[in-house]
Amino acid sequence: MKHLIATNDLTLQEIEAILEDAEVFSDGRFEKILKNKIIVTLFFENSTRTRSSFEIAAKRLGAEIVHLDVARSSTKKGETLVDTAMNLDAMGPHAIIVRHENSGVPKILSNYTKASIVNAGDGAHAHPTQALLDLFTLKKHFGDVSGKKIAIVGDIKNSRVANSNIDLLGRFGMEIILVAPPQFLPKTNLRTTHFLDEIIDEVDVIMSLRTQTERHSSQTYASLKDYASDFCITTELIGDRDIVLLHPGPVHRNIDICDALLADKRCKVLEQVSNGVIIRMAVLKKLIYDI
Amino acid sequence: MKHLIATNDLTLQEIEAILEDAEVFSDGRFEKILKNKIIVTLFFENSTRTRSSFEIAAKRLGAEIVHLDVARSSTKKGETLVDTAMNLDAMGPHAIIVRHENSGVPKILSNYTKASIVNAGDGAHAHPTQALLDLFTLKKHFGDVSGKKIAIVGDIKNSRVANSNIDLLGRFGMEIILVAPPQFLPKTNLRTTHFLDEIIDEVDVIMSLRTQTERHSSQTYASLKDYASDFCITTELIGDRDIVLLHPGPVHRNIDICDALLADKRCKVLEQVSNGVIIRMAVLKKLIYDI
Amino acid sequence: MKHLIATNDLTLQEIEAILEDAEVFSDGRFEKILKNKIIVTLFFENSTRTRSSFEIAAKRLGAEIVHLDVARSSTKKGETLVDTAMNLDAMGPHAIIVRHENSGVPKILSNYTKASIVNAGDGAHAHPTQALLDLFTLKKHFGDVSGKKIAIVGDIKNSRVANSNIDLLGRFGMEIILVAPPQFLPKTNLRTTHFLDEIIDEVDVIMSLRTQTERHSSQTYASLKDYASDFCITTELIGDRDIVLLHPGPVHRNIDICDALLADKRCKVLEQVSNGVIIRMAVLKKLIYDI
Repeated sequence: MKHLIATNDLTLQEIEAILEDAEVFSDGRFEKILKNKIIVTLFFENSTRTRSSFEIAAKRLGAEIVHLDVARSSTKKGETLVDTAMNLDAMGPHAIIVRHENSGVPKILSNYTKASIVNAGDGAHAHPTQALLDLFTLKKHFGDVSGKKIAIVGDIKNSRVANSNIDLLGRFGMEIILVAPPQFLPKTNLRTTHFLDEIIDEVDVIMSLRTQTERHSSQTYASLKDYASDFCITTELIGDRDIVLLHPGPVHRNIDICDALLADKRCKVLEQVSNGVIIRMAVLKKLIYDI
Repeated sequence: MKHLIATNDLTLQEIEAILEDAEVFSDGRFEKILKNKIIVTLFFENSTRTRSSFEIAAKRLGAEIVHLDVARSSTKKGETLVDTAMNLDAMGPHAIIVRHENSGVPKILSNYTKASIVNAGDGAHAHPTQALLDLFTLKKHFGDVSGKKIAIVGDIKNSRVANSNIDLLGRFGMEIILVAPPQFLPKTNLRTTHFLDEIIDEVDVIMSLRTQTERHSSQTYASLKDYASDFCITTELIGDRDIVLLHPGPVHRNIDICDALLADKRCKVLEQVSNGVIIRMAVLKKLIYDI
Repeated sequence: MKHLIATNDLTLQEIEAILEDAEVFSDGRFEKILKNKIIVTLFFENSTRTRSSFEIAAKRLGAEIVHLDVARSSTKKGETLVDTAMNLDAMGPHAIIVRHENSGVPKILSNYTKASIVNAGDGAHAHPTQALLDLFTLKKHFGDVSGKKIAIVGDIKNSRVANSNIDLLGRFGMEIILVAPPQFLPKTNLRTTHFLDEIIDEVDVIMSLRTQTERHSSQTYASLKDYASDFCITTELIGDRDIVLLHPGPVHRNIDICDALLADKRCKVLEQVSNGVIIRMAVLKKLIYDI
C-alpha cells in the first residue's frame, strides 16, 4: 500500500498496526525515523489546523516539510493540476499531502506520482486520517468498539468526515445512526432520524459535525439558531448519561455543542486534536518509512 | 517560570542568566539543544523581522518551527482566540510565540496552554525580547549600565518597545528621560521633555522609536516632516558626543535617524538585530530546554 | 567565489566541479553536510516551483530554510531594499536566495551582505541555476556537448533563461541559433531566424521558452494561437528526428509544446525539474559548505 486516499485502502490488519504504532507514539516513544524524508503539503483548500497537525506529526519523526503555496503557484499560470503534481513529483518528495475542494483529486494525482499521496480531505468524499483518529479516540475509551452505537449528527450529506467514519466505524462493528434534518441526510441503508430525542437513550457516542456555514445559503436551513434548537448537543439533552462526545473541529460554540458540554470531560474534542497528530505520525510511518 | 509575557516575569538573576547564555551563544558556541522541541509562531500582526529572528534563533538550536497562518486560520471560521490556542496546544508544541495587536492577549492565552507562551509584542503593552536585546547591546558596550542616562525619543505612549525598556532598563539602574511631543508622552513619574537640545549634553544613549505612520492620522502630528525637524536624530544634533544610538527598526530614514548617523559606528541598529537572534536563543533555552 | 549572480561568476573548472557533485548527488549519495547552515529565501516575484526546488535541495543537505514573506515585510513599511537585506544579513544567515523582477537587484544586494547571494532570477538578466541544470541535462544525454547545435525558441529578448543559457552553453562549445518572431529577438551576433523549418534538420536540441502571457499585451503578438501556429514545437515539426527537447517550465501546453511531445521520451522537461534540485544542491555546497 502506497497511497492513502480513503480508509478502505487499508486492510483491518493494517489499521490495527497503525493504531498500535499510535499507541506507542502517544507515550512519547518515537525516534526521528523519517529524518531523510521530504514531505510536501499541497492544500488547495485552506486548513491551518489539519496542515499543522500533519506538519507537527512529520517533524516529530524528523521529516522535512515543504509547503506549496498553491494560491500563488503555477496553477495560476495556466498549468493543469496533473502537471503541477508531476512537476512536484519530479523534485523527489517522498509524500504529498493533498487537500482539495473537489472529490477525487487525490486519487487522480496518485496515478501520476511516484510519491505517496495522502488525502487530507477531498470535497465531500473522504478524510481518512480524521476517521482513523476518531476510531483511535474511541478505542482508547472503550477498548473494543464493536457493538457500540454512535449517532452522527449534522450535515452528513456534505461531510467527508461523516463519510469516512461511516466506512471505518462500520468495519469495526459499530452501529451507526444518522441524525439530521431531511436536506442533510444522504441516501443510505443506515438507520436515520430527524430527532435527537429518539436515539439519546441508546447511543454510546455522539459525533457532532461542523455546520458548514460557508457552504450553505440561508435558504437551506432557516437559520443557524433554528438548526441549533434541534441539533445542538446540550447539557439538557445529554443529562448525566454516559455518552462520549466527538467533533472534528472547529466547533461552532452553542450551535454544534453548548459551552458547558465543551468543558465537560465526556467531550473528547481536544483529545481528538492530540490524537490527530499521533495518528498522522503512524500513517506517515506506514506510508514512507520503508521507501 | 514558564511564560514570558513581560520583562518583570523574570527575576534579575534570571535575566543575568539569559544575558550570560547570550554572551556564550554570540561567540558561536551552541549545540542543537532544542532538537526535539516544536515551536509554533502565532502572529496576528505581521512582522517578518521579529518572526524571522525567532525562527533563526529556534533553528540554530535545532528546534522545529511551525508557522500558523492566522490570516487563513480557523479564527476566520468563527472560532474564538482561546479555542484556537487550546486546539493548537492540544497538538503538543513546546512553545507558542504570539504577536497580537491587542494588549493582554498573550497573558490570556497563557492561562489555557501547557505550552510556554512567548510574547513577541502585544499592542502598546510589552515586547520583552526587544528590551532584553537592547539591555544586552548596552551591556556589551558599557559593561555596567547602572547610572547611565538614556533618552527615549518618539511616540512613547503607543510603544510597547518603550514600555518594556522603561521597566527593564530602570531595574538595571539606568536613568530614563522621555523626549516627545506632548501627545506622544504617557502619564509618568519619569523626567520628560519636548526638546532634544535640553538633554543632549547629559545622555549616554538615545533610543529613537519608530514613527508609527500606520497608526496615526495626519491630524495627530502636522506631518512627518515637522516631526522630523524636531525629533530626528541627526549628525548636527549629536556632533562628536560619545552617545550610543539605538532603534528597534525598521528605521524611517531621515525621519527617525538621518542617513549619516545610520552609517556611523555609534549607531547600533544592525548590532541590535544580530543580538536579537542571540537573545531569543537564550530566552527559548530558558523557557523550554528543561521540559 | 561567494555569490552566484550570473553563470560567468564561475570558471569552467568551478562549473565542472559543480556538475561532478551533481552527478554524485543524483545517485542518492549525499549527507547532511549543510546541517548547521541557515538559508533565507527572499522572493519578490512569486515562484513556487523555483523556491520549492531550492528548498528541497537545501533540506536534503540538512540546511534550514527561512522564508521571508516579502509581500508582508518591512519593505511595505517604507524600508529600502538594501535596508531589508542588511537587516536580514545581520541575523546571520549563510545564504540569501533572491528573486526580483528587476535586473541587477541580486548584484546590488551582494555588496551589502556577508551572506552568499544566490540569484534565483532577476528581471530579464540571469537565472544561473536554470542554465546549469540545462547544461547538466544535456551533458547527461550527450556526454560532450561541444559542437552540438541548439535552437532557443520563443520570447528570447525578455528571457533570463535564454540569457543565461546563451552565455553558459556557448562557453561549453555549443552552437546557438535563436528562433523567434522579430519583436522577440534581441540584438545579437548569434545566428537568428524567424522560421523553425529552416533549422529543424540541423539541430540536436530545441529549447522552447515559456510564453510570458502575463508580460505582453495582446498587441505585441496577434494571439497565442498565432504564436503557436509558428513556434509551438509539435510532432509534425520534429517527426522522428533525434532531437532533445527542453523547456524551463511551466509549459503552456499546445502553445509552447504539443501534448504528444510532452509525453515523448525525447522531451526532458521532468528530468530538468529533477536535475534542478540536484544542481541547486551542488551550488549550495559550492557556496556555503566551507564557511
